[in-house]
Amino acid sequence: MQNNQKPSGMPVQKYTPFHEQITVDLPDRTWPSKRIEQAPRWCAVDLRDGNQALIDPMTPERKRIMFELLVKMGYKEIEVGFPSASQTDFDFVRQLIEEDLIPDDVTIQVLTQAREHLIARTYESIRGAKQAIVHLYNSTSIVQREVVFRTDKQGIIDIALEGARLCKKYEETIPDTTVYYEYSPESYTGTELEFAAEICNQVMTVLVPTAERKIILNLPATVEMATPNVYADSIEWMNRHLDNRENVILSLHPHNDRGTAIAASELGYMAGADRIEGCLFGNGERTGNVDLVALGINLFTQGIDPQVDFSDIDQVKRTVEFCNQLPVPERSPWAGDLVFTAFSGSHQDAIKKGFEAMAAKADAQGVSVEDIPWAVPYLPVDPKDLGRSYEAVIRVNSQSGKGGVAYLLKADHNLDLPRKLQIEFSGVVQSRTDAEGGEITSDEIWNIFQDEYLPSGAPDTSWGRYELLSTTTRSSSEGESELEATLRENDDEIIVTATANGPVAAFLDIMRGRGHDVTLYDYTEHTLSASGDAEAAAYVELHVDDQRLWGVGVDGDIATASLKAIVSAVNRSVRVHEQALVSA
Amino acid sequence: MQNNQKPSGMPVQKYTPFHEQITVDLPDRTWPSKRIEQAPRWCAVDLRDGNQALIDPMTPERKRIMFELLVKMGYKEIEVGFPSASQTDFDFVRQLIEEDLIPDDVTIQVLTQAREHLIARTYESIRGAKQAIVHLYNSTSIVQREVVFRTDKQGIIDIALEGARLCKKYEETIPDTTVYYEYSPESYTGTELEFAAEICNQVMTVLVPTAERKIILNLPATVEMATPNVYADSIEWMNRHLDNRENVILSLHPHNDRGTAIAASELGYMAGADRIEGCLFGNGERTGNVDLVALGINLFTQGIDPQVDFSDIDQVKRTVEFCNQLPVPERSPWAGDLVFTAFSGSHQDAIKKGFEAMAAKADAQGVSVEDIPWAVPYLPVDPKDLGRSYEAVIRVNSQSGKGGVAYLLKADHNLDLPRKLQIEFSGVVQSRTDAEGGEITSDEIWNIFQDEYLPSGAPDTSWGRYELLSTTTRSSSEGESELEATLRENDDEIIVTATANGPVAAFLDIMRGRGHDVTLYDYTEHTLSASGDAEAAAYVELHVDDQRLWGVGVDGDIATASLKAIVSAVNRSVRVHEQALVSA
Repeated sequence: MQNNQKPSGMPVQKYTPFHEQITVDLPDRTWPSKRIEQAPRWCAVDLRDGNQALIDPMTPERKRIMFELLVKMGYKEIEVGFPSASQTDFDFVRQLIEEDLIPDDVTIQVLTQAREHLIARTYESIRGAKQAIVHLYNSTSIVQREVVFRTDKQGIIDIALEGARLCKKYEETIPDTTVYYEYSPESYTGTELEFAAEICNQVMTVLVPTAERKIILNLPATVEMATPNVYADSIEWMNRHLDNRENVILSLHPHNDRGTAIAASELGYMAGADRIEGCLFGNGERTGNVDLVALGINLFTQGIDPQVDFSDIDQVKRTVEFCNQLPVPERSPWAGDLVFTAFSGSHQDAIKKGFEAMAAKADAQGVSVEDIPWAVPYLPVDPKDLGRSYEAVIRVNSQSGKGGVAYLLKADHNLDLPRKLQIEFSGVVQSRTDAEGGEITSDEIWNIFQDEYLPSGAPDTSWGRYELLSTTTRSSSEGESELEATLRENDDEIIVTATANGPVAAFLDIMRGRGHDVTLYDYTEHTLSASGDAEAAAYVELHVDDQRLWGVGVDGDIATASLKAIVSAVNRSVRVHEQALVSA
Repeated sequence: MQNNQKPSGMPVQKYTPFHEQITVDLPDRTWPSKRIEQAPRWCAVDLRDGNQALIDPMTPERKRIMFELLVKMGYKEIEVGFPSASQTDFDFVRQLIEEDLIPDDVTIQVLTQAREHLIARTYESIRGAKQAIVHLYNSTSIVQREVVFRTDKQGIIDIALEGARLCKKYEETIPDTTVYYEYSPESYTGTELEFAAEICNQVMTVLVPTAERKIILNLPATVEMATPNVYADSIEWMNRHLDNRENVILSLHPHNDRGTAIAASELGYMAGADRIEGCLFGNGERTGNVDLVALGINLFTQGIDPQVDFSDIDQVKRTVEFCNQLPVPERSPWAGDLVFTAFSGSHQDAIKKGFEAMAAKADAQGVSVEDIPWAVPYLPVDPKDLGRSYEAVIRVNSQSGKGGVAYLLKADHNLDLPRKLQIEFSGVVQSRTDAEGGEITSDEIWNIFQDEYLPSGAPDTSWGRYELLSTTTRSSSEGESELEATLRENDDEIIVTATANGPVAAFLDIMRGRGHDVTLYDYTEHTLSASGDAEAAAYVELHVDDQRLWGVGVDGDIATASLKAIVSAVNRSVRVHEQALVSA
């Protein structure tokens, strides 16, 4: 079986592979054998890196709503802006401080370049805060050194050191604020590792970290340039080569250019990082910052507390969509509209069985279903734990089989169809969806079901030849039942009687008397217990004349429900014959 | 700096960590030291796994458009449906064959469960094809065995073996079609590795692979359950434990529940896989299948030919959006509307410098810019290689600095503003964007620029006190210039003259004569060469009365452009004073 792929003709020669740009050599890496066992420190940068990537940056009102959301969810370090670069950001930081909107256990973070007038303005912005992280950065990559700064490595180190010294100087102007420091060698992924370590270590000679006042060293994948294992290797390398490691909070800041920011964060965290910066739903420059929602819920589904509250993910989503004025995509991990949806029949069937098995297991153990391990095929999380309903889980279209249809009838109408009836009815549904295309809602399924099996009794809306109006049953001491039934047959009302060893048998005799060759093959019934009233559903499989089909009856009396089910099956048989005559 | 994060209260106890469900133990893994050096075999499953996850499944027309797109892009293995499960799919496969739509070097693939009536129908669907891959699957995971199939491992193996035998049996019914086989232990990620290997090896005892007719063994992350390194470990483990490895095409089929499907594919490929199944833009069940666009262009940006053509990504995107009736998100890797966009000033500035440096380097080498390695900060790929323009790269809003504004004036109006003028003008733009919010288009920037520096000459639309109507210059043999200028001053037309050592100096004297204390600080000019006509732009920095500001003039005559620039600066100064009077 040969591979027929051909060259694409795209100009691959323009691109230099990452390993020819930057050497990351760590054959004795240890991270692939590590496991994540607790949440990292989080830093939400929605108000800075996220905001600067919006078509329509947040207004002060939207900023405040975003800040309050992040606080409410449990983020304790929040980058709130780049106050020296934007008057809006400056004003927002002032508002947070002056209106006392920052809880005591939350630390705001502000970004600044390493230039004096910007640093001065930055300290001006945070005056009066209880504590703040001043996040100093300068670009260190090969291409930025060459193209933007036109200087050598020492020139770049000098920029960082001068920035650090200025920070110390301006720190003295706000003695009532505890200032922590974060330093980022921006465009770290395009920087030689030795140089990245050197500049971080040099910065620490000025911003001397201590056990009480550690420094955050943040290693941004400003542009994601390689597979995520390479980023992890680089983080483990840095982890080994940073001075004062015990007083360093090693932070990651992955972007998603290659679509692997979540992986880079997880592997980088396994490689020794302590902290991750990102944005809700992966907003941020270009393809975005790493998605904090995905990272957090990934932990949750491994039984690890994310230390952030995702229990009402739809509310979080709506708020973020309002603040960012950008939609969260349908397939965004754990949060998109479609991520818990199964349209395919086999998936729906397995999900339905999974729910049933969990209920049975909980019953057997005498505990709530919430107290046993989650185990439902195709659903790696219980949507309810994220505040979502099961409604979105099973959705039916032409790809769906019996499972989804049966699930919806059970969930929404307490009808527990026998397996063979599920197959029959899903054929009915599929014939309509294949013809019309598109999704079919639970309400539409219910309409089809009623139309097929439970026509309403009103003569003008009824397609059935027969309708059961009333019955009287007398049981004799010999075990015989005498059944008197009042039927509507077309437009006539008739009274018919029969005696047999039970009302079902008697009613089958009545139908035979009306000219139908009926045989009972299967019969099941159940009460609609969850519905609150005492209705019951009966299902019968009949051979009527030349075909095998099902009928369904629902009634407050289980015996009457059975007879209605027989009427349902006979009526369906009559309809098939009438339609055959019409189309012949 | 303590970590203030607190428990979230979410029910973590419900979830079993992956390593407690499935053991993947491979301390001597080799994949982290590997690098990707060529494209894998691709299999596009948009028409099957993608389609079955759509709210509105593809109509026959949309299916055909998708198929033609995949063929045109260069995919050679295309899963076209699940013909035994859907009449629409069956009919589509028949259409492809009967209308001869499948190129000779393309192999269609059809999915089937391991049940006789489905297998029979599957072979019926592919009759007449030159070749086809029959993709047989059954679920093998612990939870599916327990909950869905209620059988033990041997029962699951029996299902697979019976399916394989039936395939061989029905293969004989279509002797003119070369049938290849793919087997998937579905829900592989929830399956014990030993069992996954065993069932694959058992299936190969029936579907005996040879060198000429290899078997595809596909290991789906039906649900993504762990970090992507664990998937890679499992693939390397399988790679070591599969029989007939030389006759096996080891295939990956990652889903994206945790948001790490791209990483899982790349690491799994490094771990020994040969082939990857996915969908364009990551369509597919729940969070989607792995994104084939991201995987392909990730290769491209490493100088590796993806063997798929992405050179018109917008056309691909539009077609897929039409077929799927789902939007491709704004931040979808390499393809979203925003992924090449920089709003932030420092990014814009660096991008502008990157373009300039590449142009200069190409010039110096006497080659086209296409012939030198791509190296532009914040742009990991040249958007043009994907058929996108640079227009979307630099977009301006209140977050933007001088770089973006300057870039747009250069790109759209051939104006190459001096750096200090860039700073001045970006302040003008920012004062308007900060106040109004939102993005500002290139046209709007041009309007602001004209309003600020180049007011139109029509008296009713002009805010300037002065307008230069005409000039006459006479040069004397002593190097003196005598300038006679006709000016509009407010509503009057005046003729003024001065003599100095050049027309600019003479015109400054004229302005002094009108009562303005002007000093020239900087002066640059350039021709608008790219515009086709012979216009020139002049930029002057003047001290006028008590302020330093810039003026701009554009004219067919470079000398006149300079004088217009002086008029522009003086007019701006006058406007500032008049506004100060109004607001006082």
